[in-house]
Amino acid sequence: MTNTLLTSGEQARPVAPGGSRRGVGIGELRLDGGFWGALQETNARATLAHCLDWMERLGWLANFDRVADGTAGTPGTPRPGWQFSDSEVYKLLEAAAWELGRTADPATEALWTKVVTRVAAAQDDDGYLNTCYGHGGQGARYSDLSTGHELYCTGHLLQAAVARVRTHGEDQLVEVARRAADHVCREFGADGRAGICGHPEIEVGLAELGRALGEPRYTEQARLFVERRGHGTLAPIALLSPAYFQDDVPVREADVWRGHAVRALYLAAGAVDVAVDTGDDELRAAVERQWTRSVERRTYLTGGMGSRHQDEGFGDDFELPPDRAYCETCAGIASVMVSWRLLLATDDVRYADLVERTLFNVVATSPRTDGRAFFYANPLQQREEGARMQPDAVNPRAEGGARAPWFDVSCCPTNVARTLASWHTYAAFVEEAPDGASVVTLAQYARGDLRVAVADGELALRVDTDYPAAGTVRVTVLETPDRPVTLRLRVPHWAAGATADDGATLATSSGSAGTGDAAPRPVEPGWAEVAALAVGDVVVLELPVSPRLTWPDPRVDAARGTVAVERGPLVLCLESVDLPAGAALEEVRLDAAAGARAHDDGALVRVRRLALPDGGTGLPPFTSGPSGSAADGGPADAIDVPLVPYHRWAERGPSTMRVFLPTT
Amino acid sequence: MTNTLLTSGEQARPVAPGGSRRGVGIGELRLDGGFWGALQETNARATLAHCLDWMERLGWLANFDRVADGTAGTPGTPRPGWQFSDSEVYKLLEAAAWELGRTADPATEALWTKVVTRVAAAQDDDGYLNTCYGHGGQGARYSDLSTGHELYCTGHLLQAAVARVRTHGEDQLVEVARRAADHVCREFGADGRAGICGHPEIEVGLAELGRALGEPRYTEQARLFVERRGHGTLAPIALLSPAYFQDDVPVREADVWRGHAVRALYLAAGAVDVAVDTGDDELRAAVERQWTRSVERRTYLTGGMGSRHQDEGFGDDFELPPDRAYCETCAGIASVMVSWRLLLATDDVRYADLVERTLFNVVATSPRTDGRAFFYANPLQQREEGARMQPDAVNPRAEGGARAPWFDVSCCPTNVARTLASWHTYAAFVEEAPDGASVVTLAQYARGDLRVAVADGELALRVDTDYPAAGTVRVTVLETPDRPVTLRLRVPHWAAGATADDGATLATSSGSAGTGDAAPRPVEPGWAEVAALAVGDVVVLELPVSPRLTWPDPRVDAARGTVAVERGPLVLCLESVDLPAGAALEEVRLDAAAGARAHDDGALVRVRRLALPDGGTGLPPFTSGPSGSAADGGPADAIDVPLVPYHRWAERGPSTMRVFLPTT
Repeated sequence: MTNTLLTSGEQARPVAPGGSRRGVGIGELRLDGGFWGALQETNARATLAHCLDWMERLGWLANFDRVADGTAGTPGTPRPGWQFSDSEVYKLLEAAAWELGRTADPATEALWTKVVTRVAAAQDDDGYLNTCYGHGGQGARYSDLSTGHELYCTGHLLQAAVARVRTHGEDQLVEVARRAADHVCREFGADGRAGICGHPEIEVGLAELGRALGEPRYTEQARLFVERRGHGTLAPIALLSPAYFQDDVPVREADVWRGHAVRALYLAAGAVDVAVDTGDDELRAAVERQWTRSVERRTYLTGGMGSRHQDEGFGDDFELPPDRAYCETCAGIASVMVSWRLLLATDDVRYADLVERTLFNVVATSPRTDGRAFFYANPLQQREEGARMQPDAVNPRAEGGARAPWFDVSCCPTNVARTLASWHTYAAFVEEAPDGASVVTLAQYARGDLRVAVADGELALRVDTDYPAAGTVRVTVLETPDRPVTLRLRVPHWAAGATADDGATLATSSGSAGTGDAAPRPVEPGWAEVAALAVGDVVVLELPVSPRLTWPDPRVDAARGTVAVERGPLVLCLESVDLPAGAALEEVRLDAAAGARAHDDGALVRVRRLALPDGGTGLPPFTSGPSGSAADGGPADAIDVPLVPYHRWAERGPSTMRVFLPTT
Repeated sequence: MTNTLLTSGEQARPVAPGGSRRGVGIGELRLDGGFWGALQETNARATLAHCLDWMERLGWLANFDRVADGTAGTPGTPRPGWQFSDSEVYKLLEAAAWELGRTADPATEALWTKVVTRVAAAQDDDGYLNTCYGHGGQGARYSDLSTGHELYCTGHLLQAAVARVRTHGEDQLVEVARRAADHVCREFGADGRAGICGHPEIEVGLAELGRALGEPRYTEQARLFVERRGHGTLAPIALLSPAYFQDDVPVREADVWRGHAVRALYLAAGAVDVAVDTGDDELRAAVERQWTRSVERRTYLTGGMGSRHQDEGFGDDFELPPDRAYCETCAGIASVMVSWRLLLATDDVRYADLVERTLFNVVATSPRTDGRAFFYANPLQQREEGARMQPDAVNPRAEGGARAPWFDVSCCPTNVARTLASWHTYAAFVEEAPDGASVVTLAQYARGDLRVAVADGELALRVDTDYPAAGTVRVTVLETPDRPVTLRLRVPHWAAGATADDGATLATSSGSAGTGDAAPRPVEPGWAEVAALAVGDVVVLELPVSPRLTWPDPRVDAARGTVAVERGPLVLCLESVDLPAGAALEEVRLDAAAGARAHDDGALVRVRRLALPDGGTGLPPFTSGPSGSAADGGPADAIDVPLVPYHRWAERGPSTMRVFLPTT
């Protein structure tokens, strides 16, 4: 099998709504180390094989073999894995497809061939492909739309095929996906059964595949699924309401995301794709409205979404408990999918800002440095040391405080893998203006080389930066097309600066055809433009990455009386391993007036230790009296303690942790 | 069937550990209106019939008929209700038994006869009695100990029989229970299968029945079940840890309650019974240790237990979010069961204090004033108006903000019914001292008449009080036995008073044989004693029930920067229906320095309205800046708003609510 590295942006883009903007393709931007480059390398070197190994060990891949050899559903030989385990195989394939587009690594090529062959062999003659239903003594196809996850699994198969189309072209997996999609269209089309899947995903899978293959029937089927949802047609799941799977209110009528966060966000991503590709502005506006209210009222400082363990779901407005934050890794990834689509659809910088916040503080938090263990939930406070994980076993998914190699429900590892393998495709996008001029936008910053196809040629840029450790981003223009091209750089919302003097600046040094160096000029949050790029131009963006204090909205009850510290795009945290011997995290009160100073890749802050009440009252922990808690007063010696980036917490042994620090 | 009203304390007590103290019997104390008397009347008049009606309507009673007529388990005719629905029928029987002991009401007598006949007809020849397993195509007996709930149901059957023995004597239901208990002993005895039930309850049922019938085999079987737990023998339930059903650590080794709160507490109640009846001081001390840590670190101001929706379970220490407090009504009832047992076992007043806190603020909160709707969960904050309940349908169990007539899992209504019907038996207890002197203790206060059997006669008292609306409790001695008798009155911990002048006082006016009136004397929290009672003595306890501010321990993160207001034993709350038009609960900040004044049965407090941030940032609700949230400063006109007792909230239409009010 030949691995053709495509560099055409049109073919190689990971997600490309039908609007005028497109993300860069897998080969158009190459990372060169740095924060995300290192994560990509670990993902390629360790995580893909790790996921394959676990799925072989648990029999999730053998499930496909058993369909192929006719032994699936044999009474007395139960099928291992949840009903949705096929989807993990497909997400691994998607990760491998992106990775092959990036590096053509032989080991990944071997993984691809091995897994695709086994998946393809399990497809039924009519295109149906699922290892849990429809064979032998298994349940009938689509007999349990609420919890069966068949269309969910198919959606991930389609996304894997889209990655393959974008990075290679049509091949065996794409053909498998096409047949599966055709089967879905026959079964659930306008004349078929009017069902939807309990877990959205087929919508975005069909829409992406329709776009990648130029097949409007798939887009139309995605549209049908989006429109059918919200009318209460799914059979209820015990103890859960229809909002759990967004079957309570139609997508175009809803005001806010609710219920299971991953479901809500996958659905929203599919809805944006459908809206853009069908020109349905009302539907797009509905998702934008939901995004705004959900971000402003139901989203954590990390960008994490999902406040409740019970249903892995959104809470009420301002219900954002740090300790019980669910903030599922997959919900962070799904949030990036939605915001990326809205960014391309609208050009609104706020979507790129949330992508950055979520990538650094949710997505990057999940994998351990070695790429072989993961957080499933990403709470912002850990009260008890997280020593509950089995290092070599399947672990419960949402226990806090330690990354685990695999979970009972193990959606996050493969989701991280596919996201990291395609990370750089979210970093930049291109717009061809009506007058034929091109605009190239850097939405995320990482060291590397951009060579992007635009009208009448290519634009080649070199990006040098140590972001996010440092705030300097230097862009050198190496090659320009014949027509004028404009470069835009994102100035994040947090780079406004507290005063006129400490905000972001932009400086342009013109190259051979230019007019000399320009002094740095202040730039406001948003898009900073440099027009008429010329070879040799050097553009330097300076972002202020000093630590800053961040306060919760007064309606966030669970964080009242606390402050967080951020540094550039990074949320910081205090880990108990960084406290002096004998000190407990629950005693620590931050002296906010003393501010925060830069320290390594985190910050130093001043804290005091609180004298906590003695026990022995035999009463619940509440005390009557004329003034505030008696214990909340005693001054103590101030000490300086380091805060570290949240995304790297729990890497140094069992620890308790807080993002929001109570103030003195 | 004759309803013999027993007045012997030995027979009539609801729970009577083998120690020297016994609770008063069902006929020894009669309430005469007042707070609890009114609830008892509503329970008798409305709730029992309400529960019967729902269980008939849903087919939970017909499940017994189908076992009796041999149609249970017929393929194609699914059994209605959860696998544990039998237990609701038994709890209703227990309520009816207590109620018959109290009033001999003909309608309740008819209910009793009707239901007992149908239950008895469903018992298998060998004593097994369950409508979900073991018949026709149903699952085999005890084939799913983790989730089958068979022994759980049996435990409630035994408790119903205990109530009947205590209030009437042996009859058909008691015989049914005896045969069921014998079956359990044969099946699960020392030589039988070494299993336990996923949901504890059989332990307390067997121990109580063993005590009531003088059958040590039952106590021994209860002991076996207690000792077997904590060794990880129960098959895991997906996504839940063994701590969920307390199978992680043996009872005598555990330091704190964890996992599902009702399970943890029913188990603890059974363990105390076993410990007391077998003289196992280590086991009793273990439960006391667990009580202390759990109360001081894992219990809400209301006495509510269970911080998490996910597993209806305890959280980590100090994880006490007001908004997501689960505080299941049944957990409150189970907590009363445990504390009552420890009170009788140890005489420690702190157990009686927690009983009071929980009765007024959890148990009394659940039923609507008409006794036909109930809270299942009892959160301390409601962010959105609770208009989600279907007034005439089965409702999801833990949705907040509105009481519902019945739930999908409907354990709470019948649990409230059995607790209210026997409420007065928790109000007083008797100890015969080694020297033959008697001590009678009033642990809870309510208007009524006590006539209690003691050595050499009876003690008759009249209690007059408007408690908790007023703090005066007047006890008149009507009759005394031949030997000396001491009266003790509980001085609650909250009656300590802020200064020397405003604490509780006790005054004794001697009767005909006495020495004249005594001036009120200050009494400390604990037991206030009056020795050598004589006919005509009048004892007056004055408890300070002015509103008081109560502050959270600094480790209760979710309540930082807030204060609650209590009045006597009542926790108060602010409901949005009591705010001026246009004001929202989330804007309100309490002026703690202004204190709280008594107002109706609640309080008046002074609040200011906060200017909340505008939306439209497109950012999560956190703001960077040098000082606290910019919006948290603007002064506004102070207004006085009323607080109402928490137990009566949500009776005046949809409302948002807070117990903990942020301070200015």
